[in-house]
Amino acid sequence: METSPLARPFPVMPAIDGAVPRVARAQYKTWDRCDLTYVEMAEGTSVAGVFTRNVCCSSEVELGREQIKLGRARALVVNAGNSNAFTGYRGREAVEQIMAQVAGHIGCEPSDVFVSSTGVIGVPLPKDKAEAGVANALTADPCDWEAAAETIGTTDTFAKGATASAMIGDTRVEFSAIIKGSGMIAPDMATMLGYIFTDAKVSPGFLQQCLSAANEATFSCITVDSDTSTSDTVLAFATGKAGNAELTGPDSPGADAFAAAIHDVCRQLAHLVVRDGEGAQKFIEIAVSGAISDDSARRVGLAIANSPLVKTAIAGEDANWGRVVMAVGKAGEPADRDRLSIGFGGTWAAKDGLPLADYDEAPVAAHLRGQDIRIDVDLGMGDGRATVWTCDLTHGYISINADYRT
Amino acid sequence: METSPLARPFPVMPAIDGAVPRVARAQYKTWDRCDLTYVEMAEGTSVAGVFTRNVCCSSEVELGREQIKLGRARALVVNAGNSNAFTGYRGREAVEQIMAQVAGHIGCEPSDVFVSSTGVIGVPLPKDKAEAGVANALTADPCDWEAAAETIGTTDTFAKGATASAMIGDTRVEFSAIIKGSGMIAPDMATMLGYIFTDAKVSPGFLQQCLSAANEATFSCITVDSDTSTSDTVLAFATGKAGNAELTGPDSPGADAFAAAIHDVCRQLAHLVVRDGEGAQKFIEIAVSGAISDDSARRVGLAIANSPLVKTAIAGEDANWGRVVMAVGKAGEPADRDRLSIGFGGTWAAKDGLPLADYDEAPVAAHLRGQDIRIDVDLGMGDGRATVWTCDLTHGYISINADYRT
Repeated sequence: METSPLARPFPVMPAIDGAVPRVARAQYKTWDRCDLTYVEMAEGTSVAGVFTRNVCCSSEVELGREQIKLGRARALVVNAGNSNAFTGYRGREAVEQIMAQVAGHIGCEPSDVFVSSTGVIGVPLPKDKAEAGVANALTADPCDWEAAAETIGTTDTFAKGATASAMIGDTRVEFSAIIKGSGMIAPDMATMLGYIFTDAKVSPGFLQQCLSAANEATFSCITVDSDTSTSDTVLAFATGKAGNAELTGPDSPGADAFAAAIHDVCRQLAHLVVRDGEGAQKFIEIAVSGAISDDSARRVGLAIANSPLVKTAIAGEDANWGRVVMAVGKAGEPADRDRLSIGFGGTWAAKDGLPLADYDEAPVAAHLRGQDIRIDVDLGMGDGRATVWTCDLTHGYISINADYRT
Repeated sequence: METSPLARPFPVMPAIDGAVPRVARAQYKTWDRCDLTYVEMAEGTSVAGVFTRNVCCSSEVELGREQIKLGRARALVVNAGNSNAFTGYRGREAVEQIMAQVAGHIGCEPSDVFVSSTGVIGVPLPKDKAEAGVANALTADPCDWEAAAETIGTTDTFAKGATASAMIGDTRVEFSAIIKGSGMIAPDMATMLGYIFTDAKVSPGFLQQCLSAANEATFSCITVDSDTSTSDTVLAFATGKAGNAELTGPDSPGADAFAAAIHDVCRQLAHLVVRDGEGAQKFIEIAVSGAISDDSARRVGLAIANSPLVKTAIAGEDANWGRVVMAVGKAGEPADRDRLSIGFGGTWAAKDGLPLADYDEAPVAAHLRGQDIRIDVDLGMGDGRATVWTCDLTHGYISINADYRT
């Protein structure tokens, strides 16, 4: 698979004290690459998570939802090549086997071991391959984040990482994060597995609060094709090794900086997933204002972002604001044709329900020939606003998904 | 544009006593074809209608919603090439001009004249062209239904018509119906304009009841690309010329036969629209059973029908039931992975949440190579069922919509 034209180079990412990645070969598929990622974490590591809302979720997601209630983590295992979804009790047994194997090695509770799997649906994760793969990983040399990002990938065309830092009092804390995902991306997340590691000391409750808030404005605001995977997961791990005074809530000194850094990392990760959207040639930002609420604005934004007619218009570099009108109208949110304004790249094409008489298409046409597209929509109803991100819909998407055989 | 490979020949359709179609040239676009359709109807004609739920609808739709409350019709005018949507008061004036012009000719109320428009959004319908076009149509020779079906079409690749008949007591009543629509088709309807003409004598209230019920199970159960147009309209006109005892409610003798015939015509029309889906190579029927209610079953069916990953899998002739699982899960309806069964063309691939051990892919592969595809989904939750229809998602869709310039 060719690298996406919207790819970003892998950033220089700091090691995180108390979180050590390793990769190994489980050979879940017949391929010449590592496909099992293992990250061991220090005692005292807090964890938070957000998961797919797809009701047909995998055992990994079912178990993970229970595990984060305990707030503790010591290890993460990510299997690539087999999602283990729709595999019933046999799939669940494979996950429990991995948890027990790692817990035995570290000397922790099985519930401290988080497992994710991504790949083909409906084939139980083979226990023998998982066992051998985990054994390989436990004794492998530590690797860098880029190797880990490559190993969790499946149909990804480039490795995805993001980093940030924050000052908590006098203490600098670091964030290193990796993600995989390209197709089947929609709010409520998708075939998307993301992991954020920080050396900050944070209570599980506040870590969850920060991650959930960031998720609402980042992962829940991206869509590639409106589909929602059965396995999506974003986990945040905080090892506490930086030695800052523990953050326990929004009033802790430094809590704002920490929350902002998590948000920043999540936004970077979310954008990278869109940039690897199957067949994507253009990155599209849709800013909706004037809605009756922020939630309403987001739903309108996603209706536009999920409209095949809007996405193909952008692929064709066509400032077809009529299709945007249509998408606004079908969102089911309060809107009024006669107050609606639509612009591309900072130039309004229609204002208050009418095409602009002096609309200059030249700057819009130039903007649409670029790779980063901006659509502005003002509903003229209230103060609600939201920004969502998607990519265009191209022949590449059809080729990838019509030619991919189970 | 090449004719859809799923096209059906235009049926032999009876003339309807009291409904006379004519076509003419308004030249809304520079093209060598008729683009204005005019149908004059007898005094005493009842009317019923269903309209798009897109809140950014056209003036035609706004006016039509008011007009059907009166229950009377004497004429229909359909403009092709300009949808007149998102054109504010200037668009509304053009519609009112047409209503007045026709009313003056017939000697009826302007509110007895129904107008629809389809085509490009955002350009007010030119009043001069509309006036000349209507004048041409009023004096044109009557035409057959096929010419009317061709004239209401825009991006349609074939003319679409359907017919039925019913016995009401000893009286045979006829139905002739035409429709246009290909892309931007989704429940709540789409760039779809449909007109049903019958010589039956029916009260407006019962006609509306029959049309609304049929709409729920036909037009509201089709989707091409999940987008919803700003102009969709289906109108039913009953001239009363057959001389049957008037149908006024479900207890009138012959009411069942009449309702069944309307339903039959609507189903035929709805299927024809899917068969002209942009880029469609396969017609897909999705039958959902075992849901907690019929409504829930329909929402699950539409989630599957709107999933780009399912639609591209069918385009690729791939029995990818994992994508169907994903689509069921994202529908937001009650479902349980471990009770879910999925089949293609009558062969179950997965039962009760697990792939079938003795699953024979050969008949499924043969089925998927055909043009008419059937997907069965049983949720195992209750007695709710629904059937929805869609087409596959192909390179043709992208070509048509990325290369279509406003």
